[in-house]
Amino acid sequence: MPAISPQSYIVGVDLGGTNIVTGAMTADGSRTHGVRSAPTEVNSGAEQVVDRIAAQIEATIADTMREAGVSRAAFAGVGIGAPGPLDRERGLVVVAPNLGWRDFPLRDLISEKVGLPATLDNDANCATVGEWWQGAARGGRHVVGLTIGTGIGGGLIVDGRLFHGASDVAGEIGHTTIELNGRLCKCGNYGCLEAYASGPAIATRAREVLVREGTESLMPGLVHGDLEQLTAATVYDAARQGDAVANEIVRETGRYLGAGVANLLNIFNPDVVVVAGGVTAAGERLFGPLGAEVRRRAFAPAVAAARIVPGELPGTAGVVGAVKTYLTEKLRD
Amino acid sequence: MPAISPQSYIVGVDLGGTNIVTGAMTADGSRTHGVRSAPTEVNSGAEQVVDRIAAQIEATIADTMREAGVSRAAFAGVGIGAPGPLDRERGLVVVAPNLGWRDFPLRDLISEKVGLPATLDNDANCATVGEWWQGAARGGRHVVGLTIGTGIGGGLIVDGRLFHGASDVAGEIGHTTIELNGRLCKCGNYGCLEAYASGPAIATRAREVLVREGTESLMPGLVHGDLEQLTAATVYDAARQGDAVANEIVRETGRYLGAGVANLLNIFNPDVVVVAGGVTAAGERLFGPLGAEVRRRAFAPAVAAARIVPGELPGTAGVVGAVKTYLTEKLRD
Repeated sequence: MPAISPQSYIVGVDLGGTNIVTGAMTADGSRTHGVRSAPTEVNSGAEQVVDRIAAQIEATIADTMREAGVSRAAFAGVGIGAPGPLDRERGLVVVAPNLGWRDFPLRDLISEKVGLPATLDNDANCATVGEWWQGAARGGRHVVGLTIGTGIGGGLIVDGRLFHGASDVAGEIGHTTIELNGRLCKCGNYGCLEAYASGPAIATRAREVLVREGTESLMPGLVHGDLEQLTAATVYDAARQGDAVANEIVRETGRYLGAGVANLLNIFNPDVVVVAGGVTAAGERLFGPLGAEVRRRAFAPAVAAARIVPGELPGTAGVVGAVKTYLTEKLRD
Repeated sequence: MPAISPQSYIVGVDLGGTNIVTGAMTADGSRTHGVRSAPTEVNSGAEQVVDRIAAQIEATIADTMREAGVSRAAFAGVGIGAPGPLDRERGLVVVAPNLGWRDFPLRDLISEKVGLPATLDNDANCATVGEWWQGAARGGRHVVGLTIGTGIGGGLIVDGRLFHGASDVAGEIGHTTIELNGRLCKCGNYGCLEAYASGPAIATRAREVLVREGTESLMPGLVHGDLEQLTAATVYDAARQGDAVANEIVRETGRYLGAGVANLLNIFNPDVVVVAGGVTAAGERLFGPLGAEVRRRAFAPAVAAARIVPGELPGTAGVVGAVKTYLTEKLRD
């Protein structure tokens, strides 16, 4: 294995159901090069996806060599973030519904193709570590990270170390029940936070209000009357333009997320909660009600101890964190 | 400070709103002496309660000296478990509604009265540590403890160490929302686990069913027709005697607790969950539905990793854990 110096480069990979993002960073975190994003094209099959990841890593390496004036020997390894659940020790993606994978040996396939050692960790864990190493959660000792997109992922940093739990499942905050007999979640459970506050759940709630109440709103116009095209981004757009229905959907989203965050404050008593993903586009419209709900539901000393902040690394937190988790794992060996 | 050897004795104190329990254990955990329990008599005032705790510690010490044939020099210190929130560093009980205390310097008052160093930690944390050191959670690396009584307390052991969080609030599992607009909890929040599954909440739900549905049940008879006298123990008694209404209340309690435990499995991915307190009297009638609800709501790898077990130290887990937290704190200094 190549030795790691502060100036060694690590390639980070953030594999999502929609996009593959890659980038290279020095081990000391001071420099980033070759950030690239390309569609995952899940339907092309697992082998093709692996080939595309490897090719994108090579492109990131080539960009970095050119921009930073370093040789290929400067690259120490590859950190991969992928949807869980994972078996980190064996480098497997155990189940990834969005990718259609089962017990898929992603880490070793990538490692062989690019000829570098690799590590594998959960994508939401990587995003949390990224925000903690280089973003909004810097300086935190006990950190909760929430990444809100197609689903709601989460990660926990305990005493300055990423916490994996007994079987690499820790941090699945999106799949905590906030309403016992509530909405059906994609995981099969009822009333999960994700079923209320993920991107698609926000769009669903907006659609329901528009259909049920036929309310006056800008939203149908923004999607040319086709409510199936309505997304969470549509809701944020309309809210920014002063649309009352959209604003209520955003407020309600803040309250749902606030209930979930309050649970984490009372269980885990973090000093930082970083909320990342598309919802941060809603800004104070969302974070205001979120904070109010947290204050309403969590114990005062837990509220006082925690700053609740939007992520600062949109699009790259996962890559940055994949680099850091690589370093942590390899430097512990 | 007296040095601590494996044969040094530590006195553990478990201060509750109803009873004070004390006992002495050797630092290696091999021997226990002088376990005593007496009413707290909260209404007598804080000074009297402190005097009574000190006198009970002295009685435990005297019992132990006699039984074990040791001198007073064998006693190294006192570990105190008390209702939170606490300021551990300053040894204060910050707020204890059941005791009517605010910023009360319990640790130093006790230490001065008995002439031994003392430490202070949360009672539910102590109970969790007790079950982990000497009871049902032995061998666990990541442990969740739930103590169900007048309230629902909790404690977390992370990587073999009691986890306190950023401001000593960690583990307040009873005050996590499982139903957004649910029952009012004593903490002021709506829908807390404690509002459904604490002892008084179980009694309230039973009373509601009896009053609302006028159902055939053994329970009114067990309390001589005075439903105000009905407690959780009445429900377990009736369930044991085959009462269908009581059995449904117990099953429902299992499902509520199961939802709370499932949340902890998905967030924290423990290897042991220990459930202690009065509810364990309901046995498999409760643990059966609890386990089923956990399997329904939590991710399979988290379910596979966790044993969910009843506590093995009824009445003494808090004392045992107070001894252990004393040792951990002093041996770290």
